Amino acid sequence: MNTEDLLNQIAFIKEIDKVKYIQRKTKLFNSDRNENDAEHSWHLALMAIVLAEHSNEPIDVLKIVKMVLIHDIVEIDAGDVFIYDTQKSHDNTDEERLAANRIFGLLPKKQAQEIIAIWEEFEAGETNEAKFAKSMDRLEPLLQNTSNEGGTWKEFDVAYNKVYEKKSVIKKGSITLWHYAEGLINESVAKGILKKD
Amino acid sequence: MNTEDLLNQIAFIKEIDKVKYIQRKTKLFNSDRNENDAEHSWHLALMAIVLAEHSNEPIDVLKIVKMVLIHDIVEIDAGDVFIYDTQKSHDNTDEERLAANRIFGLLPKKQAQEIIAIWEEFEAGETNEAKFAKSMDRLEPLLQNTSNEGGTWKEFDVAYNKVYEKKSVIKKGSITLWHYAEGLINESVAKGILKKD
Repeated sequence: MNTEDLLNQIAFIKEIDKVKYIQRKTKLFNSDRNENDAEHSWHLALMAIVLAEHSNEPIDVLKIVKMVLIHDIVEIDAGDVFIYDTQKSHDNTDEERLAANRIFGLLPKKQAQEIIAIWEEFEAGETNEAKFAKSMDRLEPLLQNTSNEGGTWKEFDVAYNKVYEKKSVIKKGSITLWHYAEGLINESVAKGILKKD
Repeated sequence: MNTEDLLNQIAFIKEIDKVKYIQRKTKLFNSDRNENDAEHSWHLALMAIVLAEHSNEPIDVLKIVKMVLIHDIVEIDAGDVFIYDTQKSHDNTDEERLAANRIFGLLPKKQAQEIIAIWEEFEAGETNEAKFAKSMDRLEPLLQNTSNEGGTWKEFDVAYNKVYEKKSVIKKGSITLWHYAEGLINESVAKGILKKD
């Protein structure tokens, strides 16, 4: 065994505990308690496992699970950006890349490179796995907001068009899940918990 | 697509949100805030991914990740049992099996059977994957307690022998990690944060 490698892995494991303190804007199901990034990532991983059969293309489930488990770790340094924020881009910023290099860089070199590559692949959103992982990331808050009578849509005055545009990313990962999501969005308008104007 | 299957999967995804409310006895790293089961499961999954190379035997990492992501879902019905509880067994009880059947049973039949089998495999602790998954489950609170000046050992007056016995399960998954864990336990005695008498 290489003791230094193990100690580096333990340092990483300790550092990522901070993910449990990062509050998201969305709330838990039928709740007004904010979700944190660790809870969110756990939920996405199980969603990916359970919903994998609906992917448009063949996928490597383990890679997707890795993507969703690590995708928000950069927020330890870079913070959470609300998806409907109009001031700050949610896309891969320099700040997030710096964070990825610092935090994943705690791991032994080869492992750090592997995890950074998976994070970059998720952010780029071009492979089958990244597309499906991003579908999960968009689907969970949709389920939360519909269970919370509008949730963040109401709280932050987000309208149908914006929601429809952001959620349509689900289509790239799964047409089946997109049809289901589209139904939920339209139903939300009909129920008056999402405004269309 | 089978719409009923998808709706059953969504029902499961909504139900497991309750895992985020189940408080463990252990606290986050360097903290007095209790960890919940979702955060704990997320952490174990990433630990398994990062530490897999230390397994005694070849392992299927995806299966281990599934095990640790789902291992505490039964606590939605059965509640969390503290590992050093002397009144109630932490082992697979009838109550937990009922919970597994109810909650995993929300999924489409074939998928429910697969997940129940993985949960049973974890509980039995006999396969290479179950042994490694259990190593993760024992290692995380050890790291937490040592970062918290004794944490639950102090809070619940747990002595060296009990800790050593419970933690030695790590050995079955990884000799390397057990050597590291044993070092932490002995160091804790030397520091006076774990009593040996």
